[in-house]
Amino acid sequence: MTKTMVIPAIRPIDTAARDAALARQAQLLKPPGSLGRLEEVAAWVAGVTGRERPVPRTRIVIAAADHGVAAEGVSAFPQEVTGQMLGAFGAGFAAITVLARQAGAELVLIDAGVIAPPPGVAHEDVGLPAPSGNLAVEPALRPDEVRSALRAGRELAARAAADGIDLLIAGEMGIANTTPAACLTAALTGLGADAVVGRGTGVDADGLRRKRAVVARALALHGPHLTDEVEVLRRLGGGELAVLCGLALGAGEHGLGLICDGVIATAAVAVAVAMAPELRHRLLAGHRSVEPAHEHLLTWLGLRPLVELDLRLGEGSGAATALLLVNAACALHDQMATFAEAGVAAS
Amino acid sequence: MTKTMVIPAIRPIDTAARDAALARQAQLLKPPGSLGRLEEVAAWVAGVTGRERPVPRTRIVIAAADHGVAAEGVSAFPQEVTGQMLGAFGAGFAAITVLARQAGAELVLIDAGVIAPPPGVAHEDVGLPAPSGNLAVEPALRPDEVRSALRAGRELAARAAADGIDLLIAGEMGIANTTPAACLTAALTGLGADAVVGRGTGVDADGLRRKRAVVARALALHGPHLTDEVEVLRRLGGGELAVLCGLALGAGEHGLGLICDGVIATAAVAVAVAMAPELRHRLLAGHRSVEPAHEHLLTWLGLRPLVELDLRLGEGSGAATALLLVNAACALHDQMATFAEAGVAAS
Repeated sequence: MTKTMVIPAIRPIDTAARDAALARQAQLLKPPGSLGRLEEVAAWVAGVTGRERPVPRTRIVIAAADHGVAAEGVSAFPQEVTGQMLGAFGAGFAAITVLARQAGAELVLIDAGVIAPPPGVAHEDVGLPAPSGNLAVEPALRPDEVRSALRAGRELAARAAADGIDLLIAGEMGIANTTPAACLTAALTGLGADAVVGRGTGVDADGLRRKRAVVARALALHGPHLTDEVEVLRRLGGGELAVLCGLALGAGEHGLGLICDGVIATAAVAVAVAMAPELRHRLLAGHRSVEPAHEHLLTWLGLRPLVELDLRLGEGSGAATALLLVNAACALHDQMATFAEAGVAAS
Repeated sequence: MTKTMVIPAIRPIDTAARDAALARQAQLLKPPGSLGRLEEVAAWVAGVTGRERPVPRTRIVIAAADHGVAAEGVSAFPQEVTGQMLGAFGAGFAAITVLARQAGAELVLIDAGVIAPPPGVAHEDVGLPAPSGNLAVEPALRPDEVRSALRAGRELAARAAADGIDLLIAGEMGIANTTPAACLTAALTGLGADAVVGRGTGVDADGLRRKRAVVARALALHGPHLTDEVEVLRRLGGGELAVLCGLALGAGEHGLGLICDGVIATAAVAVAVAMAPELRHRLLAGHRSVEPAHEHLLTWLGLRPLVELDLRLGEGSGAATALLLVNAACALHDQMATFAEAGVAAS
């Protein structure tokens, strides 16, 4: 593909720190390998942070946006819910805010094109159209808009790195946004509308048929013009998807790790991986959603999810749930004694 | 089977509290069902505790014991490790102690027949032989010993209930104890030695062959005498297995919930379910271990594990990892607003 943007260099994993962490795991007070994936996770965090015994600080960035394609009747919820949920995130009683507290993670809220952003809620407006264009009939974003969104995402990652954050979670909110996520999945994997479209927040059989038809229409309309990944994101994405794609690129650029959430956030991250394949090493798949496109994206990314709890909420909730296990993996890695320290006989 | 013991009555689940929790979940600020298994878990805790919005208190009971069958060379570790690990649990640097802190759970240590219990560690001796009999050539426990162990377990559950505990985790430590666990699994499910024997903490191919032969020998020796579940436990079990079986019965008797750990603890719990099938409703499967007998036990119990992380450590570590998710499920259930409270439009 022709490149319409300079892709940032991805910082390689610190293999020395990762190998030191693996060596430490082999000496901890347990049969070697008996903590299974929790050992792998601790070593991944070590590789990402460059510290042998990391106790990671995590920030959840939730980008919210409205979508012109909502006019096609592809969601079970009215469009005003996007702004209302941004308000609920600020007020602290939404799922992701509870999980953020539970996991000790910070929460940052981004208006990536919300029609009615809530008053009195601390969030950052990155200046994107509200709503985006209706991708069934036009590109979702203009060229300057997608570039600005990518830049905003990269800046959010840069700021996180400057603030001493180790891990990012990309969360999202946007009524109708499983439709652009399905379109991005189809464009990346080559799968058709039937394979990538699911019920989202819960559309009925009619809604599902409509959604499939909309995705098929969008792919037919934009397919001939998908000259590079930025064009994929611009035509078939949306404000929050573009910001989160930039956030993922920025995570790679500034040496952070990123825990993938559900189908929408993972679609945005997958576009970033298509741009910069080495980014994959800085990713951990938090969970496997019930939305069919998510499975296809995880396979395409070659990532095995940490938990599988039949979640389909978004907001970063699956990744934040996985973060509880990431924190536990790092606590075990840091706080367990070695056989020698404990004076216990090894096998 | 003939009953050699009076089985306690299992307190039924509070279906009104469970149904109220499910009704609350349907009103919380998310598409109905979108928190998947986390919704089911919150409703399970509600049914177990009889409270619509439970924030559960959890106690991990680790029973440790030595096994005569260790003489057959069925473990990768020397027998002295059982007592040393009991000391490590007391000192706070073993895996389960880290996970208990992470999940905010209490830890109680029981000497259920340890050859060399550590000095200076707070634990309770329930007066069982150290080691148990070698089940390859004799019953593991005498009739009075198995009864005393079951009683001790039930008393531990009674005390937990009196202390305001809602959930128990049955943890264990005992070099060689995947061998009795495999025997119990075979006796309950009717499967043969080849199906139920795995590598435990990591025996090599020779060790695996030896272990299979020992289990086959034990099943042939004791098979004709397995007149009831107490005899199964007595002949093919061991000290920690009998105490934990009693703990599970006591959890049912006193209205607590129990999160199942790996193959050994689950084998003990499964014997309790064979005695009192209604106990099943008070169980949650924490994780799926890589040990093959665990999968057979979970199938036999009809339980779907919450996480699958390739753990094979025991100590209650898989259940304590799952507890992080149980706590998160209950925090979501308790702290999220309803659509009405949040003033957000429902679908």
